[in-house]
Amino acid sequence: MRTLVPFDATNPKTRLAPVLSPGERAAFARRMLQDVLSAVRAAGGEPAVLATESVECSAPVTVDKRSLDDVVNDRLGAAEGPTAIVMADLALATADSLAALFGTDGDVVLAPGRGGGTNAIVSRHPAFRVDYHDTSITDHRAIAAEIDARLREVDSYRLGTDVDDPQDLAEVLLHANGEAAEWLRAAGFDLAIEDGRVGVTR
Amino acid sequence: MRTLVPFDATNPKTRLAPVLSPGERAAFARRMLQDVLSAVRAAGGEPAVLATESVECSAPVTVDKRSLDDVVNDRLGAAEGPTAIVMADLALATADSLAALFGTDGDVVLAPGRGGGTNAIVSRHPAFRVDYHDTSITDHRAIAAEIDARLREVDSYRLGTDVDDPQDLAEVLLHANGEAAEWLRAAGFDLAIEDGRVGVTR
Repeated sequence: MRTLVPFDATNPKTRLAPVLSPGERAAFARRMLQDVLSAVRAAGGEPAVLATESVECSAPVTVDKRSLDDVVNDRLGAAEGPTAIVMADLALATADSLAALFGTDGDVVLAPGRGGGTNAIVSRHPAFRVDYHDTSITDHRAIAAEIDARLREVDSYRLGTDVDDPQDLAEVLLHANGEAAEWLRAAGFDLAIEDGRVGVTR
Repeated sequence: MRTLVPFDATNPKTRLAPVLSPGERAAFARRMLQDVLSAVRAAGGEPAVLATESVECSAPVTVDKRSLDDVVNDRLGAAEGPTAIVMADLALATADSLAALFGTDGDVVLAPGRGGGTNAIVSRHPAFRVDYHDTSITDHRAIAAEIDARLREVDSYRLGTDVDDPQDLAEVLLHANGEAAEWLRAAGFDLAIEDGRVGVTR
């Protein structure tokens, strides 16, 4: 399946600023992107990166500085056939979790992310458009209803875990085995327990 | 499948204290328990509650004031046949997500929870025991390896979302339709966006 992977190449992962320098955030974000591209391919998808500026990676890159919604919706409007949109910070994504997404019937298939996000989508309906602001999962449900699209949601912890905050780095160390996890370990990150909750230490 | 549902009836959900009074926490925790019991039954499971003190609910209750590990491991030691352990605060659990857990092959099947937890388990190995302290998912992986049990993990956002913190209440409002969600709405909770992240307001 044709799979759009939007990527902020300009100032990625700002919420990780408390634990990573700007250069480190850029490096780590690229490792996550690479993991996502590998998983998409292993699941039978054909990834295409939509980036805010040029980035070196293993998939074709289109540079487009407009807003995420504009960039993705242009592609959805021009798409012939099913199109997936998968966020570039799903460091826990695997071939299996993405194959389950791609293989789920429905005009619109959503993978919810923590905090009301929509971490991955399959659209098989020509009128479906994205709206990633705020609580996007409720917006996407509403958009699917408006166009009478048959909606399905996939239940995946791996697709539901996007890496935004320092605490999310623990999820990468606990559940991922790709380049991002390797980069974190090489940078000296390890799991740490504080107040009975797991986080990371460096 | 026989399914143990441990429940803290004494002082449940202490991390919700910033937004709920002790009485409200008790009421909300019981609604979540009830939702979990309904979902377990709808998935073909036979729930049995292990509670720290007497609690009224739709399943048989055994009161046992010992530690969670002791109480569960006693049952696992005495079990004949497969046994599941499902946490009582999985307000997003559905028949489908639990049926996927019950239906996954493996001597030990784990459903990871956010922050290194283990939110649900199926044990088909007589020597498997639980250790819920700290990063339990890594402990449970290690225990399974020590006893040469065939380990599987289920990838479920619904089972991975336990309700501990005020922010988790947003997950209930976004993704659940049971008694717990209804209770929250009746108590005046609604979704609210702050700094681009979803939370709750009352």
